[in-house]
Amino acid sequence: MNDKPKKPQKLKARLPRGLADRGPAEIAATRAMVEKIREVYERYGFEPVETPAMEYTDALGKFLPDQDRPNEGVFSFQDDDEQWISLRYDLTAPLARYVAENFESLPKPYRSYREGYVYRNEKPGPGRFRQFMQFDADTVGSASPAADAEMCMMAADTMEALGIPRGSYVVKVNNRKVLDGVREAVGIVEDVRWLTVMRAIDKLDRLGIPGVRQLLGGGRKDESGDFTKGAGLAAADIELVISAIETSKEHQIDARLRDSAIGQQGHAELEEISKLVNASGYSSDRIVIDPSVVRGLEYYTGPVYEVELLLDTKDEKGRPVRFGSVGGGGRYDGLVSRFRGEPVPATGFSIGVSRLQAALSLLGKLDSKPEFGPVVVTVFDRDRVADYQKMVAALRSANIRAELYLGNPKNMGNQLKYADRRNSPCVIIQGSDEKARGEVQIKDLIEGAKAAPAIASNQQWRETRPAQFSCREDELVVRVREVLARHGVPSA
Amino acid sequence: MNDKPKKPQKLKARLPRGLADRGPAEIAATRAMVEKIREVYERYGFEPVETPAMEYTDALGKFLPDQDRPNEGVFSFQDDDEQWISLRYDLTAPLARYVAENFESLPKPYRSYREGYVYRNEKPGPGRFRQFMQFDADTVGSASPAADAEMCMMAADTMEALGIPRGSYVVKVNNRKVLDGVREAVGIVEDVRWLTVMRAIDKLDRLGIPGVRQLLGGGRKDESGDFTKGAGLAAADIELVISAIETSKEHQIDARLRDSAIGQQGHAELEEISKLVNASGYSSDRIVIDPSVVRGLEYYTGPVYEVELLLDTKDEKGRPVRFGSVGGGGRYDGLVSRFRGEPVPATGFSIGVSRLQAALSLLGKLDSKPEFGPVVVTVFDRDRVADYQKMVAALRSANIRAELYLGNPKNMGNQLKYADRRNSPCVIIQGSDEKARGEVQIKDLIEGAKAAPAIASNQQWRETRPAQFSCREDELVVRVREVLARHGVPSA
Repeated sequence: MNDKPKKPQKLKARLPRGLADRGPAEIAATRAMVEKIREVYERYGFEPVETPAMEYTDALGKFLPDQDRPNEGVFSFQDDDEQWISLRYDLTAPLARYVAENFESLPKPYRSYREGYVYRNEKPGPGRFRQFMQFDADTVGSASPAADAEMCMMAADTMEALGIPRGSYVVKVNNRKVLDGVREAVGIVEDVRWLTVMRAIDKLDRLGIPGVRQLLGGGRKDESGDFTKGAGLAAADIELVISAIETSKEHQIDARLRDSAIGQQGHAELEEISKLVNASGYSSDRIVIDPSVVRGLEYYTGPVYEVELLLDTKDEKGRPVRFGSVGGGGRYDGLVSRFRGEPVPATGFSIGVSRLQAALSLLGKLDSKPEFGPVVVTVFDRDRVADYQKMVAALRSANIRAELYLGNPKNMGNQLKYADRRNSPCVIIQGSDEKARGEVQIKDLIEGAKAAPAIASNQQWRETRPAQFSCREDELVVRVREVLARHGVPSA
Repeated sequence: MNDKPKKPQKLKARLPRGLADRGPAEIAATRAMVEKIREVYERYGFEPVETPAMEYTDALGKFLPDQDRPNEGVFSFQDDDEQWISLRYDLTAPLARYVAENFESLPKPYRSYREGYVYRNEKPGPGRFRQFMQFDADTVGSASPAADAEMCMMAADTMEALGIPRGSYVVKVNNRKVLDGVREAVGIVEDVRWLTVMRAIDKLDRLGIPGVRQLLGGGRKDESGDFTKGAGLAAADIELVISAIETSKEHQIDARLRDSAIGQQGHAELEEISKLVNASGYSSDRIVIDPSVVRGLEYYTGPVYEVELLLDTKDEKGRPVRFGSVGGGGRYDGLVSRFRGEPVPATGFSIGVSRLQAALSLLGKLDSKPEFGPVVVTVFDRDRVADYQKMVAALRSANIRAELYLGNPKNMGNQLKYADRRNSPCVIIQGSDEKARGEVQIKDLIEGAKAAPAIASNQQWRETRPAQFSCREDELVVRVREVLARHGVPSA
C-alpha cells in the first residue's frame, strides 16, 4: 500500500481540437474585413438582422454534406423539456426560421445581412476549424433571376473592396436545375447514387476530367492508395455527364439533355443572369457560367454561385497552396416553405470570413503592422503609486492610451522591458530627485530604438541618454502629446 | 380505420426559450456601445484577445451561482473522444485557460480585453436570457490593489462614455477577504452554510436589513408566500454580520471581527484602493466602498466591484423597474493557478452589454431613429429589367445605397409601398414614354411625405405630383445625390 498522499492533479490548459484563440493582429484584420463587407452589403440595400447561436435541431434541418460523424456535423444537446437544440452550422437555416416566424411583419422581398460564428462538429484538420465566421446576405420572397444576378455582382464587388484585384478571383455560376436535367437524362432514381455523381462533378477542379470519369464509373485510387467507390455509370452516361460539365470544348449536345424540361429551364435562368450582369458591366473577367459548380449544401434548388481565388501561394513550409472557394451561395426555394406550407423563393450569398482571412494573410494582403501600445508610467518609488496613478489618469483624460506598471516595481529594467514588449511609444519616470524639482522624465522609446545602433558604448549611452528628457510635471500631457505626434501615434 | 393520408406536418418556426433575434436598431445600438467601451478599454492600455465559444468542461470549472439545473448552468456535449465540452458561461474562465496555455509568451502583467456572447443553461425569465453579451478587461499577473483600483475607475469612465451621467451610476467596491473575516468571526465551517449567509447579504438592496436578518436567522416568507430557509445563525452572530455590512450607521465593531487577520487584510486593501482612486480624482460620487457587495461567482478571492445604475424607470406596462447591477468583477487569484501550480494573481471587470443595453433602451438613452433605406429603382416594364439593373449598378458605383425592386412588378403601387416600408429616400421610375425621351422620373419620398398633408384631393395630388421630377438618364446619379444631400442622407 502506498502511504504518500496523492498530489492534486494539475489541470491541463488546452483547447478542444479544431478551435483556436485569436490575438490582436488577427482581431484587427477581421474587424477591418467585416467593415468592408458590411459597406458593400449595405450599398446593395441589405439591412442587418441577427439570430442566436442555437436553434431547435428540427428547425435547422439536415442539409450538411459529407456527414462523417454520428451526430451529423452539428453540436447538439437536449433542453430540460427533452427537445433537441443545436448550434447553427450556417447562417441560412436560422434565417429561414426567422423569416417564417416573422413573415407577416417583414417587408417583402426581405433583404437582410448578418455576420457571425457558425459551428461544425466535423473532423478538424489543417485549416479546417469547428468554429468559423461567415458573413451572409439573403433576399427572401423573390423568384427573379435578377435576385441571383445581384448576389453574383455583390460577390465580385466584395472581393474588390477587400483588396483582391480583378482577375485574381472569379464568381462561377451554375444551376441545380441544369444538374437535375443531367440526372433526368441519365435516369438516376436513387438520391444516394445521384449524390455520388454530384460529388464526382465537384472534384473537377482538383482531379480534372480523367479523375471525374473514374469517379463516375468504377472508382478511383488516389496517390496514397485509398480507393473511392465510383457511381457505376455506363460509358454513354459518363460521356453525357462529361459533355454537360465541360465547357471549354465544343460538344455535340446529347439529345437526352436537350429534351429535359428542367434542364432547359435551368439554362434559361443562367442566360437571364448572364444578360443582367453583362448589362451592368460585369463581364466574364468577373462572373462566368461554369456547369461544374455543385455547392455542397443540400438545400439549393436553382442557381448556385461560388467565389474562387485564382491566386496561388506557398504555405510556411513552402508547399503550394490553392485557396479555391472562399464564398458561395445559391437559391433555396424550399427552406422557408418547410415552415409556411406555401412556396417562398429565396436566394443568398455567404462569405467564409475566416477562410478568406487565412488566404489574405498567406498572400500578405492583410495589414499586420503592430500598433503602438500605451504610454507606460513606471513605478520608481513604491510608496508613491498614488502619484504615478494620478499621472496615468491625467494622460487618459487627455485621450492618450496610458497605464501604470502593475508588475513588481523593484527593478526598473523589468519595467522598461515590459514597455518594449507592449510596443510603448514612451515611458514616464519620476525618481525622488525629479520629484523634488517638480519634474518628470520622458523616455522616447521609438527615438531611442533608432539611436541605439549609432551609440558605441554603454558609457556613451548613459552620458547622452538619447531621446530622454525632463519636463515640468504640469507639462506632462503636452510633452507626451508632442512625442506621439512626432511618431504619428494616434491620440484624440 | 382512418383511410385519409396523413397531411405532412408543418414545422413550427420558433426559438427555444431564453433566446432572441435582433433587428437593425438593436444591432446598431450594440455596435455603438461596443465601440465606446472598446475606446475606453484601449485608453486604459488593454489589448484585444479572443477565445472560442466552447472549452473543455473541466477547464471552465464550476463557479456559477444558483445552479438550478442538473447540468449546473452550462450547455455541454460530449466530443467524439468522450471528453466533455461546454459553451462558455463567462469570459473569465476561458481567459484563465488562455493565459495558462500561453504563459511564457505573454507580456506580464498581461492586460487584455474581449467581447462576446456567453451562454447560461438557466431558467429563462423576463429579461433573463440564455445567450447574452459581455465585454471584459483583465489584468493577469499583478497582485497590486492598483490593478483593482484601475478596474473601478475604468468602470466609471465606461459608464460616462456610454452617456450615463455622473450621479446616475455608482461603482461599489468590497473585498471577499472582509467577508472571509466575518465568516471567521462567526465561525462558520461548512461552505454550504456560508453560501447561504452570502446570499442573504447579497439581498440587502432588495430586502433591506429586516429581510437580511430573517435570512440570516430562521428564514423568510415573501409576499407570494414562498418560504426561503435561513442560515440559522444565533442572534449575536446575526448582529455581527449586520454590523459588518451596514455602513450608514456608527457601529461598535465586534471584537471578533477586529481580531480576524484576513478581515484586516481585506480592509487594508480597500483603504489602498480608496487612496488610489481618490488621488486620481474619483471620489465617492463615482466609487464607494460598500461592505454588502458579494458578487455571485465563486472564483473571487479579493476585491469585488459592482456597477449599479441609480436610475429608475417604468417598463412598457408602467411597472417600476430598478436596473441594479450592469457590470462587475473582482480579483480571482486562484483561477489561472489551477493550471499552473503556482500563484498567478489576476483581476478583471465585465460589462453586461445586453443587460446595460436593455436598461439604456428603457431609459430612452439609445439612438433609435431609423436610418434611411436604399434608393429603390422600380420595374415599370418587366422586359427591361436589365436596363433598370444598370441604373442600380450606376448608383451603387457612386456609393449610393440602391436596389432593384425584386418582388412581383405587376403593380406599381406595391413597389411604392415597399419603398415606404424600407424608408427609402426616393424611388426611380422609367416607363416607355420616359424611355423614349431618354429620361427618368425621380420621386422624392421624404418631400412627398411632408407635402402630403397639405394636398386636398387625389386629383390635386395627381396634377401637382409633389416632389416628383424628370431628369435626363445620364444625370440620374447627380440628381439622386442632390435629393439625398437635401435630406442629409449619407452617401460617400
